[in-house]
Amino acid sequence: MSYFENIQQIKYEGRTSTNPLSFKFYNPDQVILGKTMREHMRFAIAYWHSFSANGSDPFGSGTAIRAWDQYAGLELAKARVDACFELLHILDVDYFAFHDRDIAPEGSTLQETNQYLDEIVALIKDKMQATGKKLLWNTANMFTNPRFVHGAATTNNADVFAYAAAQVKKALDHAKELGSENYVFWGGREGYETLLNTDLGLELDNLARFLHMAVDYAKEIGYTGQFLIEPKPKEPSKHQYDFDAATTLSFLQKYDLLPYFKLNLEANHATLAGHTFEHELRVARINGVLGSIDANQGDLLLGWDTDEFPTDLYSTTLAMYEILLNEGGIGSGGVNFDAKVRRTSFEPIDVVYAHIAGMDSFARGLQVAAKMIEDRVFDNILDTRYASFKSGIGADIVSGKANFKTLEAYALENSHNIVNQSGRLELIKATVNQYLINS
Amino acid sequence: MSYFENIQQIKYEGRTSTNPLSFKFYNPDQVILGKTMREHMRFAIAYWHSFSANGSDPFGSGTAIRAWDQYAGLELAKARVDACFELLHILDVDYFAFHDRDIAPEGSTLQETNQYLDEIVALIKDKMQATGKKLLWNTANMFTNPRFVHGAATTNNADVFAYAAAQVKKALDHAKELGSENYVFWGGREGYETLLNTDLGLELDNLARFLHMAVDYAKEIGYTGQFLIEPKPKEPSKHQYDFDAATTLSFLQKYDLLPYFKLNLEANHATLAGHTFEHELRVARINGVLGSIDANQGDLLLGWDTDEFPTDLYSTTLAMYEILLNEGGIGSGGVNFDAKVRRTSFEPIDVVYAHIAGMDSFARGLQVAAKMIEDRVFDNILDTRYASFKSGIGADIVSGKANFKTLEAYALENSHNIVNQSGRLELIKATVNQYLINS
Amino acid sequence: MSYFENIQQIKYEGRTSTNPLSFKFYNPDQVILGKTMREHMRFAIAYWHSFSANGSDPFGSGTAIRAWDQYAGLELAKARVDACFELLHILDVDYFAFHDRDIAPEGSTLQETNQYLDEIVALIKDKMQATGKKLLWNTANMFTNPRFVHGAATTNNADVFAYAAAQVKKALDHAKELGSENYVFWGGREGYETLLNTDLGLELDNLARFLHMAVDYAKEIGYTGQFLIEPKPKEPSKHQYDFDAATTLSFLQKYDLLPYFKLNLEANHATLAGHTFEHELRVARINGVLGSIDANQGDLLLGWDTDEFPTDLYSTTLAMYEILLNEGGIGSGGVNFDAKVRRTSFEPIDVVYAHIAGMDSFARGLQVAAKMIEDRVFDNILDTRYASFKSGIGADIVSGKANFKTLEAYALENSHNIVNQSGRLELIKATVNQYLINS
Amino acid sequence: MSYFENIQQIKYEGRTSTNPLSFKFYNPDQVILGKTMREHMRFAIAYWHSFSANGSDPFGSGTAIRAWDQYAGLELAKARVDACFELLHILDVDYFAFHDRDIAPEGSTLQETNQYLDEIVALIKDKMQATGKKLLWNTANMFTNPRFVHGAATTNNADVFAYAAAQVKKALDHAKELGSENYVFWGGREGYETLLNTDLGLELDNLARFLHMAVDYAKEIGYTGQFLIEPKPKEPSKHQYDFDAATTLSFLQKYDLLPYFKLNLEANHATLAGHTFEHELRVARINGVLGSIDANQGDLLLGWDTDEFPTDLYSTTLAMYEILLNEGGIGSGGVNFDAKVRRTSFEPIDVVYAHIAGMDSFARGLQVAAKMIEDRVFDNILDTRYASFKSGIGADIVSGKANFKTLEAYALENSHNIVNQSGRLELIKATVNQYLINS
Repeated sequence: MSYFENIQQIKYEGRTSTNPLSFKFYNPDQVILGKTMREHMRFAIAYWHSFSANGSDPFGSGTAIRAWDQYAGLELAKARVDACFELLHILDVDYFAFHDRDIAPEGSTLQETNQYLDEIVALIKDKMQATGKKLLWNTANMFTNPRFVHGAATTNNADVFAYAAAQVKKALDHAKELGSENYVFWGGREGYETLLNTDLGLELDNLARFLHMAVDYAKEIGYTGQFLIEPKPKEPSKHQYDFDAATTLSFLQKYDLLPYFKLNLEANHATLAGHTFEHELRVARINGVLGSIDANQGDLLLGWDTDEFPTDLYSTTLAMYEILLNEGGIGSGGVNFDAKVRRTSFEPIDVVYAHIAGMDSFARGLQVAAKMIEDRVFDNILDTRYASFKSGIGADIVSGKANFKTLEAYALENSHNIVNQSGRLELIKATVNQYLINS
Repeated sequence: MSYFENIQQIKYEGRTSTNPLSFKFYNPDQVILGKTMREHMRFAIAYWHSFSANGSDPFGSGTAIRAWDQYAGLELAKARVDACFELLHILDVDYFAFHDRDIAPEGSTLQETNQYLDEIVALIKDKMQATGKKLLWNTANMFTNPRFVHGAATTNNADVFAYAAAQVKKALDHAKELGSENYVFWGGREGYETLLNTDLGLELDNLARFLHMAVDYAKEIGYTGQFLIEPKPKEPSKHQYDFDAATTLSFLQKYDLLPYFKLNLEANHATLAGHTFEHELRVARINGVLGSIDANQGDLLLGWDTDEFPTDLYSTTLAMYEILLNEGGIGSGGVNFDAKVRRTSFEPIDVVYAHIAGMDSFARGLQVAAKMIEDRVFDNILDTRYASFKSGIGADIVSGKANFKTLEAYALENSHNIVNQSGRLELIKATVNQYLINS
Repeated sequence: MSYFENIQQIKYEGRTSTNPLSFKFYNPDQVILGKTMREHMRFAIAYWHSFSANGSDPFGSGTAIRAWDQYAGLELAKARVDACFELLHILDVDYFAFHDRDIAPEGSTLQETNQYLDEIVALIKDKMQATGKKLLWNTANMFTNPRFVHGAATTNNADVFAYAAAQVKKALDHAKELGSENYVFWGGREGYETLLNTDLGLELDNLARFLHMAVDYAKEIGYTGQFLIEPKPKEPSKHQYDFDAATTLSFLQKYDLLPYFKLNLEANHATLAGHTFEHELRVARINGVLGSIDANQGDLLLGWDTDEFPTDLYSTTLAMYEILLNEGGIGSGGVNFDAKVRRTSFEPIDVVYAHIAGMDSFARGLQVAAKMIEDRVFDNILDTRYASFKSGIGADIVSGKANFKTLEAYALENSHNIVNQSGRLELIKATVNQYLINS
Repeated sequence: MSYFENIQQIKYEGRTSTNPLSFKFYNPDQVILGKTMREHMRFAIAYWHSFSANGSDPFGSGTAIRAWDQYAGLELAKARVDACFELLHILDVDYFAFHDRDIAPEGSTLQETNQYLDEIVALIKDKMQATGKKLLWNTANMFTNPRFVHGAATTNNADVFAYAAAQVKKALDHAKELGSENYVFWGGREGYETLLNTDLGLELDNLARFLHMAVDYAKEIGYTGQFLIEPKPKEPSKHQYDFDAATTLSFLQKYDLLPYFKLNLEANHATLAGHTFEHELRVARINGVLGSIDANQGDLLLGWDTDEFPTDLYSTTLAMYEILLNEGGIGSGGVNFDAKVRRTSFEPIDVVYAHIAGMDSFARGLQVAAKMIEDRVFDNILDTRYASFKSGIGADIVSGKANFKTLEAYALENSHNIVNQSGRLELIKATVNQYLINS
């Protein structure tokens, strides 16, 4: 049966098409800067939003109309697998991503839960082989079940820590089994509700211990996918330990975990932390840890994680700019739509419309960013602005030859001659607008 | 002459005194947990807010009525020194803190500027020797002058970098001269207005180079005060590089600067970064870098740095709790009032009232925090909550004996027996309220 | 059976009691400013948070351990009624408040739903008569069921509008039946997700039509309880129509509804709108529409409605100050705990601890506010500050005698003599702290 | 002399021009929906940002390089007039706007101040007649001078109220003299720092008295320009009385001022109040009070009024959409650039670049909005969504025929048949993106 009835595979029809079920900008085979759009993007569908969620929010029940809801238990789990591969086909998307609990229900014991999981993983593996679709990343849901009320790796309850370890061990086994290209740690409830009852030092030490165990186990079983951490500043906890890219880097450095991890950065998490998405990407890029992205957008006038499908072309353009400049581009990562249709967009076709909107927005961002790179728009700006560090006293500073005494001597000579140049922000923004429209 | 006419030295009169010019809680010689209040606090007055500022804001001119405004140039600078030592006496405060440009005007060349500075530093040194007052920290203002429009150590202009180096070199000379117990780096304009014209990698590398030069120069001249960095997330720049404690730790680790720096944490900067003040203090404490505090408070419904005098007893209590638990307490740091009277509180006596308000609020915070420590309020909570990590599987996790396989084996046995305990947040908050009132 | 096993009725034991199951400040029979604390407060328990909620959040399942969860359907509804009256007894609270869907489940038709409701209302009426407990207010839940996905009175679907009308009609019948002292309209999903598909004018006109129908129907059936509107700025909608007190006043005035409505103000909604709680109360007070309060508090570093139990004594003090100054105090309204225990406080006893925390915090607020009123703390400040409007040109302004020409003539004479006085904010805040500790 | 040396008048060169000193989208004579772009826009330059400001911020001195800074006092004032008319010519902009204190310095008395003002007004009048340039609006600066520390019309000092009255009287005389098409009241310091020392009721009553006096005086002198109020929620005061459009409407209604005032809405003020710009415009439009706009944009990750030049095409498109749908379009109002070049954009040419950026962004917004209106994009959406209110029970609701009893009867029949339709937000956003690129 079909879960997205009467919807044909979406094709590129060009920017003026009035067919809502077509791509206006995403042309998978179009080559840009030496790679196809498909290769640049490595789009992925998020299982949780598109197959497990129902549109509920803290004030209301689910609204989503989904044909698979006629089933329950393992049958429901199987139906969702079918729906997932159907949507991958419709959207011509190569990758998907899931939490363990998205794909299979919990049983009454861990044994039973693992058995359900194994069964669905086997089914997914078959589907992958049959279709060529791939797993961008998997992860373990260690936040929904009440046992994780105080966290998983940062819980105050050692039994829960052990349970979480068992869960991730299994998830790594499945990552290997399915050839998952990455394995993601998202904070879930790793954080605190209040410092008043929290041993912050112990909890962070334990988190590091947990991650080292994961690294060790992956080595042991020969799983070679990339480990990723996904920063988020708040929600569900009042404070999430992986607050942002810089905080996560600080943690990884302190605990000697930096060689093993990259970051999976999400737009909405960036803005909740008070940063632009491009800031987080830039921080990751210059530290060599830009691993993958969770593509969505927040509403900056709202203070929670709205996980909207990304349609802001400014944001997608600057995100793609960072990815294009990253060594190896998005690498083994991808553009995963960690985005949910609005509760008011409850029909199955909205899931298709929403992905088209997101894919086209990123495709347009790629076009614009690539054109600006080809035209050396920002390179020219930087070359001019930082020219003083290429020679003379500036070169001495960069090379390490200068010190406070040589610099003071220089400054005493030159203090009356200092001339700055305008940063030209308004002109630059107008230029970006031109590229946005004209590219 | 007197700049705070008819105001006698403020004395402790107890919590029910109706004399506005008395301390209600700050009793300098009262011993708490083995030290006098004076020793715990090491209060400092901020030169910039209390002597150099005039109450202007982006929408209006200065309102402050200050007797020293009858002078100009170096005479004004000297009058302010007198006013500072008068206020230190009135408030019975031992420390003060300043930027170079607070205490002396700029000349037409760096040479002339340095000459003015030297003259005022000599005057201050005399005053210090005569009164026993001490310098908590000094720093260099590298943000007011237009030359720093694009930053100082992170400018795009090598000439400006050199100038900044010369300025800090001089400031370190003065730190040594005056026995300053710390030297502070506050970000000023070290940040960016937009990523669109910013070479983030180069700017951060240069910042690290600058700080290493400072470390080297301090060694060279034998200056042994503590180096401090003061995080702030935004303002004046859209993004400030020393965003918060964790970001600063990340930077210090990456560039091998961690051994040389501690943090000077400010309440209002914490909340602008989305954190509580106690969070920032805790992060610093568990990383061994809690150096000093800038005591003030923000208005969480406003989005800029309001630098209000601290009066929220919840915040001062939890701040003092972290300081009391810090190894060595506040150490060579202190409680510096980086706070300004409201523009509407423009009379000289308001400066006195405001400091009394702040000192009493911190004194009360100390009393309450100390009582909670004596009664082991939080210790008892933590002992119970984290008991499971003291023995059995929890002890194995902490000691490093456990791994994913042993933990899975344990979890498979115990997954049905997991029992969590309530975090009791509401009861804990009611308890804090009781201590606040009853201590 | 008991749902709060082994918990005796909570008694006042005074501020130094170490019994967590006692009131430290709330002494129901203590007379303050001519009324007992009980009369001032009119505390109410919110049915939804304490009996219908389960501790779930967008990232996790319910954690609450509740003895009534052994039941289902109507039996569950009946058990909750028992639990509610048990908790009212334990806490010695006189009032409760509910939405229709809190107390009874929905049936498969509106008829069946109403039948369930009628049955539970009859049970509640019996309990009320037997115990003397009273209904502070009731309301209709028009946001949980998917039919309200686009709003109720502001839906785009006339069938939904009709359904909502039927629901409120029934709720008003029940309000009359139970002698509910107020009837509340909380916005639910009356707002918009996006302006891009919203006819704002029609939706607001329809909301006004709906409220007029409610007024008419109440008259028709002789229901004389006070109508209340509860402002909230955002969540669940991106924009809620009753954004804050001023917006709601604007709406009521435009549609000639002001004579029939007062406001039910919530602390957390105030801060989400960018206001302090006391601001919203003050706006309501000076406009004669301060009707009732939903007592809770938000976390100003988080951007969603956390509905925490109120423990901030600054906020409860200033709230009680406004209520004490309101003509008739809280009137037919009350202090309703629209607050939920944290998801991490999942044991039944936490519900008791949390209400004690809230009741004591408001009781302490009452004590402090009353003492400041008795001592004329703020009256004295205002008398001095605004003295210039009591005579001379100021009196002419207030009485309407002055105009631009007379004022210009006055100003031309006096422009050089204008003298302002300090607002003394820091001193005032220190004074509030003293009252907080000493009252 | 020229203040913008070597800059020719900016011409439209089309969207692919690489000449930074050209318009890419603003083609003044292009007709769109029956009016020229020039007529739609009525662009204005803000005197304060472009001629009086110097790029200072709370952390630094002015950076702006301006040729007129060689002058002082009245000579400076005259030079700025020349500069203003030069920039109006360069940008081919027809309107400007000013505060009284922007155009002339204060003297030592009000008399002297008025004399300076009169002299400059006469000069401006001559220039206007010579060039055909027009005054969009003027206003009185009642916030910069220290006398306004506690507000102007809402001060606690009657002498200040009188002074403010005299100032506005003069400003209205000048409005008449110069044929100013509007007169604006912006809140300045009309608000409060703290409720603890504020008589909110008296202050708002006085504000209403002040505005009535202004209305009366305008009638008396026959000034017929439109009165505008400009909402802003916070800054410089903690709370500004004209918080947002709805709050201002509430105030105008309460005090019978609604017939005399419209709103001047600013993008950055909207977002500081937690609203989108288009929300504020829509609220004004459906209440018939959309008067004029202050065109700029804020940074939603910063909490203060950044007053950036508007370049976000989403915002300009939706703003122009509201203006196009407003009866009479922008009417006697205009698109006034209440925007400042960044402190880092300190060269004169940046002022030109910035205005080009803003004008092109609004021109593009106009093109896109007009195309969507021509294609009935949103009309079609609304027609479908709200169809149920056009007939049957929906028509009865709108016409006033329905009541709770007839609606209940209907609902009891139809409760099981309710069908909602998706709001299609993602598809709508994708459509907007298409129009943005393709128009």
